[in-house]
Amino acid sequence: MDKKFYCVIDIGGTKILMLLIDAEGRVLFKEKHSTPVPKLPELIIGTIKSLLVKGKAKAGVDTDAAAEGIGLCIAGFIDHRNGIVYQSPNLDWQDPVKVCKMLEKVTGCPVIIENDANAAVLGEVHFGAARGHKDVVYITISTGIGGGLFLDGQLYRGSSGFAGEIGHIKPFGRGRGCKCGGNNCLEAWASGTGLSRSAEELWNKNELNNGRITAEKLFMMADEGNTLALEIVNHAAENLGYGLSNLVNLFNPTCIVLGGGIAGNRNDFIKKIENKVFAEAIYPSTRITRLFIKKAELEPEAGIWGMYALLTNKVVDND
Amino acid sequence: MDKKFYCVIDIGGTKILMLLIDAEGRVLFKEKHSTPVPKLPELIIGTIKSLLVKGKAKAGVDTDAAAEGIGLCIAGFIDHRNGIVYQSPNLDWQDPVKVCKMLEKVTGCPVIIENDANAAVLGEVHFGAARGHKDVVYITISTGIGGGLFLDGQLYRGSSGFAGEIGHIKPFGRGRGCKCGGNNCLEAWASGTGLSRSAEELWNKNELNNGRITAEKLFMMADEGNTLALEIVNHAAENLGYGLSNLVNLFNPTCIVLGGGIAGNRNDFIKKIENKVFAEAIYPSTRITRLFIKKAELEPEAGIWGMYALLTNKVVDND
Repeated sequence: MDKKFYCVIDIGGTKILMLLIDAEGRVLFKEKHSTPVPKLPELIIGTIKSLLVKGKAKAGVDTDAAAEGIGLCIAGFIDHRNGIVYQSPNLDWQDPVKVCKMLEKVTGCPVIIENDANAAVLGEVHFGAARGHKDVVYITISTGIGGGLFLDGQLYRGSSGFAGEIGHIKPFGRGRGCKCGGNNCLEAWASGTGLSRSAEELWNKNELNNGRITAEKLFMMADEGNTLALEIVNHAAENLGYGLSNLVNLFNPTCIVLGGGIAGNRNDFIKKIENKVFAEAIYPSTRITRLFIKKAELEPEAGIWGMYALLTNKVVDND
Repeated sequence: MDKKFYCVIDIGGTKILMLLIDAEGRVLFKEKHSTPVPKLPELIIGTIKSLLVKGKAKAGVDTDAAAEGIGLCIAGFIDHRNGIVYQSPNLDWQDPVKVCKMLEKVTGCPVIIENDANAAVLGEVHFGAARGHKDVVYITISTGIGGGLFLDGQLYRGSSGFAGEIGHIKPFGRGRGCKCGGNNCLEAWASGTGLSRSAEELWNKNELNNGRITAEKLFMMADEGNTLALEIVNHAAENLGYGLSNLVNLFNPTCIVLGGGIAGNRNDFIKKIENKVFAEAIYPSTRITRLFIKKAELEPEAGIWGMYALLTNKVVDND
């Protein structure tokens, strides 16, 4: 069968998700595959190539048909104009990788790339929780904390594509280094990893030994009335409230979209954050502006649909 | 004489500055006048009206000639679309003032309004320190802390005009309320007023009594080796460094412009802030992006020239 299709890929630290989607938005193929170990660019490109062959067969498009375009989203510092990933901690990529060129070479298709949170904000704006909004902040609270900015009706990437690093605003708490090289970043305190770290530090300080304390376990302990756990959870909610109120004060958005596993599963935690935002942000941006704080609707495919929007030119894009 | 001219006015807490400027950017008239006390909107409008009569006479334009447009800039929360000042602490305006309508009524000219820091970033972009830059953050460090954002080649105002409130990002330090209603804002700790407050608190704690300690006096004491004064100054520089690194991480700008009395006069202080920014911001936005941190060039008239740029349509403006 000869029809137009687009290939969109989310390359994560543990899974690679590929969708083939036609011009009308119908999903022709969808598959998850483990990220190869070691996470070398060449191995990942190989996995994508095989997935694409399989996908075309399943989707019923010609084996030698080329996708109209391929869209990649990856967590990390990304130069979208030149198709370079400067650093992607989830993939253990520390040096620049020209991933678009590599993939263009093996597929013969044009490839675009975007930071995963940038892609996610586009997904939520075009197909999800932020439909109809012109000024949107997207934040994902998960293992790490990522952000995407949709300002004045466009994705805002900054001068070189590195904008929206909401996880690395600061200072929250004291004396805690962050993997970005800075100190006391929101991510270092209020992400899943940050919560876990706070718990282990506080347990050590109190000479308790509970071994590894995941964020999930910590939330459960707080639910069961453990006061130390509750203290840490409340501190993280407070910091996220401060962080989001900064975004309100800087961007005066009409919509904040909360994504990520923690935001998705913890209504009481989200309520605490929301209360803090409305208490701390300047009043015109919460009272005169009608501000919506919403849960993401497209997870875990927000990035996929954002890249689809980019590929199909549904997005006003100055770049 | 019959020629086109524009009227631009900066309404400050102590002074009102008016310039009449022709279409070629020549200043035809410039005068400062004390802000009337009490700072009632009607009295301020009256002062502007008299200044305009005087200005037209001095500029040699017909008494009954109307300006092509009037541009106002004022510190405060401003809805530029509807010409409303929601709150202006410097003018003791706590309730909404429809200042554009009032001024249009007495002058017969179209009037536009902008937050003073928004106007200042436009001034610096078009005529000052940030010429040629597309992504610019302007911050003024003075009695208060204000900010203006120029993103993707345009002034970014947010959904209702309240964006760019850099003075109210947080949390810096602990337990200090801010006049915005929030807590631990950058302004509450690192503005002139914030420095003064820190000094007085620390002096009290140490049972010293120096009476009122202005920011200027504090800097002098630090210069003379007073360790308490130096501690406060360093803490403010550190917080400003954190604050600016947040802006780098969120906006990935190519230029940060520092305005305001403190930034203008304290090179060593600015150096400390800069060092902190380059230590704390994510590396791609300071190493891959070439980031300039510059002093404002147009003070105290940056806002004036920004409004002139807006009036004469030198600015791409979606609103």
